[in-house]
Amino acid sequence: MEQLRKLIREVPDFPKPGILFYDITTLLKDPDGLRLSVDQLAEHYLGKKVDRVVGIEARGFIFAPPVAYRLKTGFVPARKPKKLPAPAARETYSLEYGEDALEIHKDAISKGERVLIIDDLLATGGTAAAVVRLVKSLGGEVVGLGFAIELDFLKGREKIPDHDVFSLLHYSK
Amino acid sequence: MEQLRKLIREVPDFPKPGILFYDITTLLKDPDGLRLSVDQLAEHYLGKKVDRVVGIEARGFIFAPPVAYRLKTGFVPARKPKKLPAPAARETYSLEYGEDALEIHKDAISKGERVLIIDDLLATGGTAAAVVRLVKSLGGEVVGLGFAIELDFLKGREKIPDHDVFSLLHYSK
Repeated sequence: MEQLRKLIREVPDFPKPGILFYDITTLLKDPDGLRLSVDQLAEHYLGKKVDRVVGIEARGFIFAPPVAYRLKTGFVPARKPKKLPAPAARETYSLEYGEDALEIHKDAISKGERVLIIDDLLATGGTAAAVVRLVKSLGGEVVGLGFAIELDFLKGREKIPDHDVFSLLHYSK
Repeated sequence: MEQLRKLIREVPDFPKPGILFYDITTLLKDPDGLRLSVDQLAEHYLGKKVDRVVGIEARGFIFAPPVAYRLKTGFVPARKPKKLPAPAARETYSLEYGEDALEIHKDAISKGERVLIIDDLLATGGTAAAVVRLVKSLGGEVVGLGFAIELDFLKGREKIPDHDVFSLLHYSK
């Protein structure tokens, strides 16, 4: 994993002063970085009978499809409101100021299907918890949640208890 | 390819009246649909020495990373303004009303690198042409452009002449 850590670019004061941003684009453009991160995420869930891999818009769309491809299963996007063309279930979640929402097509997950949720970053966990609620509202079973980066000091995994949470890289403040 | 066509959902009057929307989510959630579409896109460019695969936000992020993974190369996102944390090049393009822009990190593509551009849909070609300009402005060489769906009647490929354009599925009005 330390090979991957060297490929992450740390950008101070983005998107605003005082925030240290962990930029995954330097990892993604590296052939070994992309391959290793996808393989390590996928291999954690090999043998766990994953039926669908859900990726969260927009950066979760980057990791989830190749993980689904590697696991020989299908990909389902969790999108921002009004992007999906067919009937969709919606869950709202809190932001620092106000709230936002995510949607999944109602026919994208069937009752009893085993779902892996993938995003690039686990921060406060609000988004991840909303997607867990979405998947469960459609009758899906959450096999686990996989992330490229986890900001341990924000304690996001406390918002998704009782679920397997796996992150390639951990950062403390 | 006709196996893939059956997996596309046609949604009338989305995102507005009179538009027939070709929904790829029904293809993506199908394990064979995802695998075949990624493999067919990637195999068209095997042997063409692709150094980087650029995906266009947001739905281009779905196909480009698994194609890059399959081609054993790196992925570079072309993002909407203000999303990228490091210095980026920008190109604007016209929309029906007004204009929008896309950005790529300046250090994501080096002079002479061979770049494949991937998006889900080739419609009027404005977005694709902007990304071609972006890649060239950074010194990259465009190996080709690959799409899941091409709306032939909008003649998008006329906006990207002198480039190899490959689409899995073609639709006429």
